[in-house]
Parts: sequence; C-alpha cells; structure tokens
Amino acid sequence: MGISEIREQIDSRREEYLRTLFTLLKQKSISAQNIGIDECCNMLKNFMETIGIKTRRIETEGNPILYGEIINDPDDFTLLIYGHYDVQPPEPVEEWNTPPFEPTIVDGKIYCRGAGDNKGQIMAQLLAVKSYLEVEGKLPINVKFVIEGEEESSSKNLAGFVEEYRDMLKADLVYTSDGPMHSSGTPIVLLGVRGILYVEITAKGADWDNHSGNKGNIVPNPAWELVQLLATMKDKDGHITIEGFWDNVRQPTKKEQELIKTLPLDTKQLAEQIGYKDFNMTAEEYYRKLTLEPTLNIAGFHSGYGGEGSKTIIPSKATAKIDMRLVVDMDPNEIFDKFTKHVKKYAPGVEVKRLGSMKPSKTPSDSKVVEVIGKAVGKSYNCKPVLQPCMGGSLPDYVWTQILAAPSVVVPYANYDEANHSPNENIGVDNFFNGIKCTCQVIQDLGAAFHR
Amino acid sequence: MGISEIREQIDSRREEYLRTLFTLLKQKSISAQNIGIDECCNMLKNFMETIGIKTRRIETEGNPILYGEIINDPDDFTLLIYGHYDVQPPEPVEEWNTPPFEPTIVDGKIYCRGAGDNKGQIMAQLLAVKSYLEVEGKLPINVKFVIEGEEESSSKNLAGFVEEYRDMLKADLVYTSDGPMHSSGTPIVLLGVRGILYVEITAKGADWDNHSGNKGNIVPNPAWELVQLLATMKDKDGHITIEGFWDNVRQPTKKEQELIKTLPLDTKQLAEQIGYKDFNMTAEEYYRKLTLEPTLNIAGFHSGYGGEGSKTIIPSKATAKIDMRLVVDMDPNEIFDKFTKHVKKYAPGVEVKRLGSMKPSKTPSDSKVVEVIGKAVGKSYNCKPVLQPCMGGSLPDYVWTQILAAPSVVVPYANYDEANHSPNENIGVDNFFNGIKCTCQVIQDLGAAFHR
Repeated sequence: MGISEIREQIDSRREEYLRTLFTLLKQKSISAQNIGIDECCNMLKNFMETIGIKTRRIETEGNPILYGEIINDPDDFTLLIYGHYDVQPPEPVEEWNTPPFEPTIVDGKIYCRGAGDNKGQIMAQLLAVKSYLEVEGKLPINVKFVIEGEEESSSKNLAGFVEEYRDMLKADLVYTSDGPMHSSGTPIVLLGVRGILYVEITAKGADWDNHSGNKGNIVPNPAWELVQLLATMKDKDGHITIEGFWDNVRQPTKKEQELIKTLPLDTKQLAEQIGYKDFNMTAEEYYRKLTLEPTLNIAGFHSGYGGEGSKTIIPSKATAKIDMRLVVDMDPNEIFDKFTKHVKKYAPGVEVKRLGSMKPSKTPSDSKVVEVIGKAVGKSYNCKPVLQPCMGGSLPDYVWTQILAAPSVVVPYANYDEANHSPNENIGVDNFFNGIKCTCQVIQDLGAAFHR
Repeated sequence: MGISEIREQIDSRREEYLRTLFTLLKQKSISAQNIGIDECCNMLKNFMETIGIKTRRIETEGNPILYGEIINDPDDFTLLIYGHYDVQPPEPVEEWNTPPFEPTIVDGKIYCRGAGDNKGQIMAQLLAVKSYLEVEGKLPINVKFVIEGEEESSSKNLAGFVEEYRDMLKADLVYTSDGPMHSSGTPIVLLGVRGILYVEITAKGADWDNHSGNKGNIVPNPAWELVQLLATMKDKDGHITIEGFWDNVRQPTKKEQELIKTLPLDTKQLAEQIGYKDFNMTAEEYYRKLTLEPTLNIAGFHSGYGGEGSKTIIPSKATAKIDMRLVVDMDPNEIFDKFTKHVKKYAPGVEVKRLGSMKPSKTPSDSKVVEVIGKAVGKSYNCKPVLQPCMGGSLPDYVWTQILAAPSVVVPYANYDEANHSPNENIGVDNFFNGIKCTCQVIQDLGAAFHR
C-alpha cells in the first residue's frame, strides 16, 4: 500500500466525492446574515463522524466551532487543520450565471457560493482523511480539525477559543487551505500574514457648512486640517514617518531575502489584474513590498461637496479611513498608541476611532516542517511550489503562531480565478481532487519525517 | 420742495407701493429653471415706462437685460443703478411657511421668493425715481438702470453686454442694492468684492479599487497623492505657498487700514451665526481676513470608501474641489496658471479643471463720490453707515470698475435675516420703504454735489 493506491482510490470515487461536496455546498451557511449556520454545522459534524473523526460541536458567543480529532498516540506528531464552514453572502445575486447555492459544473469548474472559500478546500482535506483511512486503515500522525463558523465575519471568537482550549488543540503544525494558488498556476506555500489596524480620523470645524466667500478665512476648514495632519505621516518619498512606527519591524532573514528573489511574477498579467498599466516593479521589489513592509493606506477621505460643478462651502467635517498593514513584530495596540500620539501632537482636535485590528504572524521559512510540506506539495503537484514568506492580506493566523505557539502554513487548493467573495465563485474540479491528493501526501510525508 | 416732501409722499403711498411690489413678486422669474423670465422682463419694462423711464429690452445669448434711462443732459452726472429681476428656485418648497410666490406680510416682513433678492430692492429704487419725479418734476442727475435676468445663474452675459454697450452705459457711479444690511442693523456701504477661481483637481491610480492587503503598497494611492500635493500649497501656519500667489495682492491704503479698525463686530452673534463657538478673532483681524486677504479653500475632497465601518481598499480616484477668493489686483487667469504650474511641479499626473472664475473689484474709499454716498445714506437712516472696503463674497462688480471704469458701491436695503437663497426669503416692510427714501436722498445729494 502507499500514496499511489490512495490516489487511485480517490480517482475511483469522483462521482461520490463530488456528491458529498455538493450536499455541503447546497446547505447555506451565511454568517453575516445568520442563515443556515446551525444546519450546516450539524451536517458537517455528522459527516466527520461517519469517516471516523471524533467530533465536538463547541459553542461560542457567536457561531459554534467544530473540533475533530483522530489521535493514535498523544505523543506523536500532530497536524491541526484549520478551515471554516461559513460563507460570504451571495449578493449581488443577479450577477451570478447559475443559482448561487445550486452547485453547477461548467467547463470543468464547480460554481457555487463557498465552492472555493472554503467548503471545497475543507472538504478536500476531510475526504483525504477518509481515503487515507480506507486504504491504509490508519493515519501515520495525529490529525485535529478546527472548522469555525464566522471566518467571514472577522473570526470574532477564534482567539478566545484557542486560548480556552489550548491544551486540547496542542499541535506541531497548523495547516490551512484557503484562498487561491499562485497566479502562474503553481502551488504556493504561504508562511505568514500581515496584520492590520483600521482607524477612522475625524476633524470638525463649525457646526454646519459655511459660505466660503462670506465666511472664508474666518471659519476653520477640517478638510485642510486632515490634509495637513496626513501629510505629516509620510515624507515626500512615501516613507511612513509616524514616530516609532518602524521600531519593531523584524528584518527579513537571509533565507527570506533569498526566497524573495526566487518568486515568479508575470508583470503584464499583474498589471492587467490590478488595472494599472504603468505597473513596472521587479519581482523582488514587488514581493518585498507586499510581504515584508507595512503600509499606511487611505481607504477613504470624505469632506464637503462632491457633486457636479461647484459649490462654495467650507465643510463642517472631514473624515478619513486608514488601514495599516503590519508585519512581524509590529503590535496593533502599540501602533494604535503611536498613531494616536502622532495625531495628538500635530492635530490635537482630531478624533481617532479604532475600527478593528489583527496581529501579523510569521512561521520561519528554514524549519524542517516547512521543508517537508514544501516537498510534499511539490511531489503531489509534480511542480516545485512557490514558498512565500508572507501574504499581503490579513488572516487570524496569529492565534496559531502566537497563542498556540505552533508553526502555521497556508497551502491554497483553489484556482487563481476562484472569485471568492464575488459572484460566480468557483473551484476547478481538478483543483478539488488535487487538493484531496495533496492532503494525503502531506499526511504521508509528515508521518515519514516525524513519526515518533 | 425737498426731501421731506418726498418722504411724506412715499409714506402716503404705502398701500399702492406694496401692491406694486407684490405684483412683481407674484410673477415667477426663476433663471435656473427658465420659468417666467420673459413675462417678468416685460412686466418690469412696462412698469418702468409708466413712471417715465425710457426702457429697452436687450436680448443676449441668455436672458434679456432691461436698460432704462432718464437723461436730462448727457454731460451731467450719471448714476447707473444695477439690479436683477430673476430669482433663485424656491426649493425646498416644503420648508416655506407661506407659498413661495404669494407675497405675505407676517410680523412686519414680506415673505416671498425674490422679496429681498432682488425685487424688493430694485423696486425700492424704481419707486424712488417715481416719487422723486412726482414731487420734483425732474431728477437732479441722469439715472440709468441695468436690470439683468441671470444674476442667479452667474451673470453669464453681463460682461459681454457691458463691453458691447460701454458708451451707452457711461456713468460716474454704479449703485447696487443687494444683499443684507450689517448684522448690527446699521446701514453699510460696500466698496468692493473678492474675486473667485474655482478648480477641481483629480488624481487617478489604478482603473478600479484594489484590495489594500493583497495589493497594498504596490498600487499607487491617489488620495495620498492629493493629500501630499495639497500639503505643498500651505505651510503649517496656513499661509498659501503657491509660487507667485501673493504677487499682485494690493496693499491696503492707510484709509482702508483705518476703516477696518472702525468696523463693528458682535463676536458672540457671529459665533452663533457660523456655528463655531470657539470663534475669537478681534474685529480688526476678522475684517482684515475677510476683506483684504485671499483664500485657498477645500470645498470638497472625496476618495474611496465613506460608509459605515471599514472597507479595505486602495481607491482608484481622488477629487478635490478648491475655491480661491481673490483680492485686488489678483487676476483669475494668472492665478490659474500659477496653480497649474504648482500642480505640474509637485504632482504632474494630477488633472486640473477650471470650473469658474470672477475678477475681484474695488472702489477707492477716499473719493468724493464715496463720501457723498456715505453721508446721504447716514442722513436717510439717521445713523452713520459702516464703510467696508470689500465684501467677503464675490459679485460681478468688476464689469463696472474695470470694463466701464466707474466707481461702484453696494448699499444693501434688506434686513440681515432676509434669508436670500433660502426658504422663507423676506424683506422688512420698513426696509422696503427706507430703501425708497434712501435712494431719493442719494439722488438728491449726488445732484447737490455734482450737478454740472
């Protein structure tokens, strides 16, 4: 017996495995709208139990979390697989080509809300365990599952859950399959996420808009106040100048710097994808900025008149929404304090409101476990994966690397054009089955490398 | 015969004069909506002819202008009275306490669209000529009237008209009654207006909004570009730093500097009126800033997300609307060139669009004619008028001071709370009759001082 028998078994079950996935996809589970959460959670729990995973439904202040485990020997290597059963709302429904909760295969892709994000990927992992058990009788490592129900609503209760169940969740590696593969079609192993701090700043002038002629230069203008405040936060080269902002930015390791140089980039494809034809960074510059540097982004700035033509007013209010992407070891609380201190210094009347935050997270690229995962993924896809030190976006990965203190890797199974969060979300049929096979290879290779 | 007989005659005609005004007020003449313009113009022409003013209706590319004259001797002193017969739209109609085109007297005020702006004031001037002629048989000076029909739509054709009819319009003084008296209730003589230049600047990034995580610090942010550009236009004390902006600002004369010190200001009343309780300028500082200094005002700034909560995007576009109030001898064309040059230097990709402009205008405060007007107004109201070197807002006054090359004064007759451009526009019954009397005094005193 071995991986090739398992792969054959998977190929022989295509109809059955697709039906299993479709059953889960048809069950709505929209956390933002509180639709179908309970039903979906119970359906998934039942399925996990039928394949031999001991599963608990654990209540939180929000939606329940499913915890499952197959423990052969508590002292053996333990893989924790993380995913979510909730999905984004389907709106705008009129932009879907097929009904959003009716899984439909068109040109080799399964279209359905949740197909890629995340039901198709979590189901690939569960079916991998099922196939492995059917062929081999047992797994070579311990496997745990944490499948939450509010990832699409900021994972509000995940950190508390991990805190509370730290002992139960103890693992040697956390493994997530979410998001798309590399734009080149190559598999990718992501070793971290950027954190985020989201603030809103508001300047107020008079109690109402005033006439800019009859009241011009006697009433303060809050739009000017925000412009002048924001201008103190970056120098003319765009470098962030908030005092202490860069203090805890961890310098990339030599290995990371080398990794950055190996990452592929199709400049033209990216330029089209972002709608910016003048994009001309080198691959190295692109990945360095995206994965190793923080940002200070104006996501919105609104004040005064914005309609057609001219209106001569002094606005009474100006508001800017700012998000900062944070890299390790920046702490959102500390950055918030530094940001607030900066505002107090340059524009003491401006209000700062904190709208949300998430810590950055990183797993060292030079560990044995990352090497094993990289090789397993490469073997399964017959293609060397891209090893990226960090993703540009933010996920609650810190609950694993910081609260659970385990390394964490993200290995996406979905196609690059999965359209997650958008109409016509999909996952390639091949992506689904390759994901099942890749999970089996990972389990196999982790066992071979770490079985105690 | 003399001014007291004329005043008595005016008092004896209260009912008739109110009826005359009401007839004009009931005739809609909304230039922005092209309602009733023709009818109102003809009604006013007929009325002017019945009182002995030789009147022509002169067509323009927009609404017709009424030109009227009573010439005794072409070489004698000539007063040109300027006003307008068009009115603002009445919307929002539901906020009116009485029907907007049904003149209604409540607590000593006539409520109607156009009551203060400008039918009540222009009618006061016409009825002054009527009363003067009835009592005295003839006027002691030549009087000309220019009553246009699109003042509420930017006086688009006034400059061209004055250019074309410069000889016919030749005058020794232009006299306008529009807007409200001083907030203290004191009459006011305004000797100039600030000009205006209105521009819209737009920065563009990618063709659509991008995700601030996955695309953060690789896609340019146009909101940042505008913030950094605008910040180069003022120093941290708020002083405008566009190169050459201040070049042609005419220094106030000694007389103007003295005038500024005499102007009354009720700080508390103004603070309430502008909705800014922290207002604490001295009267001198207030009038200096309002009348002798230019502005660079952000009337609007819009980019990216402005709704509730957070959205993590890099906006694809940012737009700011900017109005600059200009003092003599700043030229809007030159300022536009300097503004554009500044943008090209600091943010060459930013588009500059010119939305409108009007030149500043000023009449010297130390001329004989201004002295005569000040005294006549003081005599008529039995109260020394406020002599203000300039108003904060903008009017097409330059067509008189620059194209016609005549001094020009604005002597408002309406009460301070006339609510022009707003629901419940009104003029005090007393303001209306005092305006008739004041115009008679002005005609009388100009004759006494300048009759050749």
